[in-house]
Amino acid sequence: MRAPRVILLCGGVGGAKLALGLDRLLPSGDLAIIVNTGDDFDHLGLRICPDLDTVLYTLAGVVHTEQGWGRADETFSMLSELARQGGPDWFRLGDRDLALHLQRSSRWYRGDRLTEITADFAKQFDVRSTILPMTDEVVATRLETVEGVLDFQDYFVRRRCEPVVQAIHYDGAQLASVSAELLQALASPRLERIVIAPSNPLLSIAPILSIPGVADGLRKVSVPIVAVAPLIGGRAIKGPTAKLMQELGLRQGVVGVYEFYAARYAGLIDALLIDQADDHEATALGCVVASTDTLMQTMDDRLRVAQRVLELSV
Amino acid sequence: MRAPRVILLCGGVGGAKLALGLDRLLPSGDLAIIVNTGDDFDHLGLRICPDLDTVLYTLAGVVHTEQGWGRADETFSMLSELARQGGPDWFRLGDRDLALHLQRSSRWYRGDRLTEITADFAKQFDVRSTILPMTDEVVATRLETVEGVLDFQDYFVRRRCEPVVQAIHYDGAQLASVSAELLQALASPRLERIVIAPSNPLLSIAPILSIPGVADGLRKVSVPIVAVAPLIGGRAIKGPTAKLMQELGLRQGVVGVYEFYAARYAGLIDALLIDQADDHEATALGCVVASTDTLMQTMDDRLRVAQRVLELSV
Repeated sequence: MRAPRVILLCGGVGGAKLALGLDRLLPSGDLAIIVNTGDDFDHLGLRICPDLDTVLYTLAGVVHTEQGWGRADETFSMLSELARQGGPDWFRLGDRDLALHLQRSSRWYRGDRLTEITADFAKQFDVRSTILPMTDEVVATRLETVEGVLDFQDYFVRRRCEPVVQAIHYDGAQLASVSAELLQALASPRLERIVIAPSNPLLSIAPILSIPGVADGLRKVSVPIVAVAPLIGGRAIKGPTAKLMQELGLRQGVVGVYEFYAARYAGLIDALLIDQADDHEATALGCVVASTDTLMQTMDDRLRVAQRVLELSV
Repeated sequence: MRAPRVILLCGGVGGAKLALGLDRLLPSGDLAIIVNTGDDFDHLGLRICPDLDTVLYTLAGVVHTEQGWGRADETFSMLSELARQGGPDWFRLGDRDLALHLQRSSRWYRGDRLTEITADFAKQFDVRSTILPMTDEVVATRLETVEGVLDFQDYFVRRRCEPVVQAIHYDGAQLASVSAELLQALASPRLERIVIAPSNPLLSIAPILSIPGVADGLRKVSVPIVAVAPLIGGRAIKGPTAKLMQELGLRQGVVGVYEFYAARYAGLIDALLIDQADDHEATALGCVVASTDTLMQTMDDRLRVAQRVLELSV
């Protein structure tokens, strides 16, 4: 692993867009991405890591671009046969995608560390950046809802984020630990900036920060920590960020995002990059604020946001 | 499980042809098939049971007919992606086929019995006959060759049966036991005949007979046991039967087949159905002998051989 100049904390689809921008902007090896594994789960005997795969596929240029996750040019023969047999087809496993799940699962269940497996995948896919799972241990995001406690995929895929959430737990996090590789990245003498992707703060970033040592480790590093707000005009591009924030009593919009980070992880965030549509909220934020067009539809958008987050003076 | 009238001992491709003939000839539920699991192995974290799958797919009418195993209308997206990633692609896993492997593996590794899993698959595929693994425990056929000891799939798929074999072991067989369902089938009050399919005696039938209690259980049943010779004019239709018999010092042709069963399992075989091309060898055999055209190319062939083996007077 090369000592990184930039570390990105990242979830799935939204975060992966910024990951790609940074990956393409920076020299090879300068970026390390710490990825949420709270969504990981066991399904059909496979160990599935949705956010790691989304980041890997995105950086490798094989992601289904419109969808933002899964493989381009995918086929679904296995899934249609599984459905015909009456098997569990609610999670859309593509045939190409299965190659990765099978390779990971066969190693995971015999005890290989997720960090090592992920590093080997990054090599196989010629990825320039370092992809680091937030931990090698099992952490499971669970949602306490008005309908009872739901596993993440139950909530997210099966129930389409509909049940009202009362609390979120990162089961296993308190007993989990960071990997040697993650500590090594944080200790990089070349480190210049830590970025928090515009991922869901509650479902993608908080799980990472819930691993003992991560929030403290980040605070101790003497480089600026810049978060990119995942809301534009109070709304998420994709996913339940705004809905969840409301259900959990957070303030709406970027003020709510800032307050979430500031209240829960005091002293962590040095600056927030917001969308220019939210400029009017800037004065209400207790940190350095910059704005740009944060909607990342094209590769140019991804590069622009990446550039802005790296240049932002703190 | 219905009490069977006929029990078939069976391996993969060759045996499955007779299994299909019997399945279509007999009323639903009258046939129970005891299938070799000595070829079963772990691959990519999956538990793979080649002979069980071949029998299931054949009886379900979804088998790749020319090939004799695997699925018709198969796609190979996973395998081509696996190859691209540098994964182990020597075993040809099709996408549709994977649905079954995933369903089985997720249950197998959490401790479900293979007999139960197989029964559920038979239901899912609307199979009329009962398919019984020879045991629920792990038995692994291994070949002592001039190049060292090889696992079955190493020998069969990777090395294409080329290394000269000096001995065959059914590892785990002595500690394995028959299932309650298999005992129940053997105790069927409706039982009229036991058939040994034209499968490889050494690689497909001997593993079944190596499970403690099976050979004795068969001998104790007071119905005729009829074997169908797997050689025509001294040659196997497919696979290494003749080559293996020669390497292990057995006599060639149907005489060698008979002597193998008679020497190793005295009193087991009551009759042998041979091909009419081998009629001249009939007098050298120490049991009832009948002959027909045993080459099973068409459905009519399968039905004819099935009919002949059931009608053969012992």
